[in-house]
Amino acid sequence: MVKRDSERIKKLSVILEEAGIDYLVVLDEVNIKYLAGNPIDYSLVYLDVKEGTVNGLVNIMEAERASQVTWLDGIYVYLRPQTQYDGGYEAVRGDNLYDALSKVLTKGRIGIPFDRITHKQYLQLIEALGRELIDATEYLWKARKIKTRFELEMMSKSGELVDFGIHKAITLSKEGVTEKEIADNVKCEMFKYGADRVFDFLIVASGLNSANPHWRASNKKLEVGDPITFDFVASIDGYFGDETRTVFLGEPKDELKKIYEIVLEAQVAAVDAVEPGVKTSEVDEVARKIIEKAGYGKYFIHSTGHGIGLEVHEPPRLSTTDETVIEEGMVLTVEPGIYIQGLGGVRIEDMVYVDKSGVRVLTKLNKAYTII
Amino acid sequence: MVKRDSERIKKLSVILEEAGIDYLVVLDEVNIKYLAGNPIDYSLVYLDVKEGTVNGLVNIMEAERASQVTWLDGIYVYLRPQTQYDGGYEAVRGDNLYDALSKVLTKGRIGIPFDRITHKQYLQLIEALGRELIDATEYLWKARKIKTRFELEMMSKSGELVDFGIHKAITLSKEGVTEKEIADNVKCEMFKYGADRVFDFLIVASGLNSANPHWRASNKKLEVGDPITFDFVASIDGYFGDETRTVFLGEPKDELKKIYEIVLEAQVAAVDAVEPGVKTSEVDEVARKIIEKAGYGKYFIHSTGHGIGLEVHEPPRLSTTDETVIEEGMVLTVEPGIYIQGLGGVRIEDMVYVDKSGVRVLTKLNKAYTII
Repeated sequence: MVKRDSERIKKLSVILEEAGIDYLVVLDEVNIKYLAGNPIDYSLVYLDVKEGTVNGLVNIMEAERASQVTWLDGIYVYLRPQTQYDGGYEAVRGDNLYDALSKVLTKGRIGIPFDRITHKQYLQLIEALGRELIDATEYLWKARKIKTRFELEMMSKSGELVDFGIHKAITLSKEGVTEKEIADNVKCEMFKYGADRVFDFLIVASGLNSANPHWRASNKKLEVGDPITFDFVASIDGYFGDETRTVFLGEPKDELKKIYEIVLEAQVAAVDAVEPGVKTSEVDEVARKIIEKAGYGKYFIHSTGHGIGLEVHEPPRLSTTDETVIEEGMVLTVEPGIYIQGLGGVRIEDMVYVDKSGVRVLTKLNKAYTII
Repeated sequence: MVKRDSERIKKLSVILEEAGIDYLVVLDEVNIKYLAGNPIDYSLVYLDVKEGTVNGLVNIMEAERASQVTWLDGIYVYLRPQTQYDGGYEAVRGDNLYDALSKVLTKGRIGIPFDRITHKQYLQLIEALGRELIDATEYLWKARKIKTRFELEMMSKSGELVDFGIHKAITLSKEGVTEKEIADNVKCEMFKYGADRVFDFLIVASGLNSANPHWRASNKKLEVGDPITFDFVASIDGYFGDETRTVFLGEPKDELKKIYEIVLEAQVAAVDAVEPGVKTSEVDEVARKIIEKAGYGKYFIHSTGHGIGLEVHEPPRLSTTDETVIEEGMVLTVEPGIYIQGLGGVRIEDMVYVDKSGVRVLTKLNKAYTII
């Protein structure tokens, strides 16, 4: 049994009650972790809004583990009608998980996040439950985008984790070393540091590869004059950290140095612009205007940032079209970049927590122009 | 540009043509890799069945990378109506990815795997395309469950990878070492060996923890007399290997030794039972009967195995209820187990390729009763 983060359950219950939802059902790993403290395989979790309890309809293989690693109030094992069972949990029988759910939630309005179930699951649920489902996507995100005190604590740690990773990567960057050698090595070091996940494909993009924002570490060797962009994503107990730094292995071409200073100016200004009451599109505009003014607008080919938490990319987006008003408690990334095919690219990214009046930056590595 | 696995594209095209589908559209990472050779983020890929071509509607950030790491015939960049672009790819303009797709596929019957899009994506697609979609789940699995020569080659390598990982884990297993230390260490070693992915939560389940089939490596220290179950999942270029071994750190309790011999007998018999023409439920029955006869039926709380490939768990299942007829070219796991709370558990798992007349076992570690 782990200690419950009651703050999130209360907050979510209020949102759901206002929306007229009696039960929130989640089937995906991340939302199960959000509601129960840890994921459980082949299982579902539901929040009883009126009672304020969180219950699991769990696979027989997972019951014992669920009792140890979650804060579930009720653990029910779902079994096919004929399966023998004498374990210690109450059994709910049905032809499958959805059928079993229909035995438990016989009435009441059920909300489910449509962005985290497959269409096939939707069809199975509708058939088993015999009634309409309410899309709970926006309600879950409304709760998840404002981090609790516990979550902020976790994300401070994940900020330190990616700081550690990029620092390590920089120390490993020498002429002749491959991108992949650096990525593999840093992965190991981050696991030893305490990461529970490290993105499978860490971005180590050197030389011309740095012109691809989503480059995956390859067998290319580092060469003198290369820009090297490190964009690392890893988590501590499910909470992600995300940070990007670009450094130069020896003196780069003049234009790359120029680009670096423009991206840095844009990034610092955008971080400064983040505060409660400002729209995310306004933050994007701050970064974008600086880059456009410098004549590189068409090379800034993505948005300025995104929410982050139990997933790497969460709402809101810091983009031209996202009108979300920033609130205290959000954690956002700020990461403008310029990418020129045939020359290279630069991106600088921090993860920031929105405070009462501004931000607390959770990633703390130096971001001044650096030649290594 | 990577070399196309034409065998799969031809096989899939025949299946889709028979089903009356003109275009197969995929949006998820794994099916994009299956159709295009590698995943591309924020993008979709479609197979034009009549033309036999595979095309991508790709995010502007991904175009250059897609041209390098996929075998796509056509790469189209989707852009919002107002975005400036002078890159080298043909642009398709739309308010979003789905809208852009509607400009490209103006007529014809479109198939999409409903098990690999979210319900939200389904609603967005229907709205943008303004017509019905055909569920292509079964057609994709029909193709994917029969591995091509290229895929068999990859999975032989992933079998060697998990062999390597478990062998390494066994050498690291000493009194006082924690489960997590072993898991972290082996993760690193597998990445260095050439894995592109290693499951975030490797199963190292020692002592009483081994009674939980899905235990995740914890801070428990290994003790003398412990059974230790290693269940490792990792991939080479996207193709997964999956293998389980249980060993004992010094002489275990008599009942654990007895259980080991029963599981081993069941596992060997089930592997022997796999051949073209046999139903997967019959293989499950072979293992289950041996365990039931020995009096442990109620402790064998999962199915005997599953298909594997670009995903760890693919159809078919080797379970009491799956009536799939085994065909040449399938890759399956065979993994019976016995789990007794308060005592411990044993599982033994191999990955096998179905040959003309029987199987080729892709995981080759010793599975005789072993005290380390």
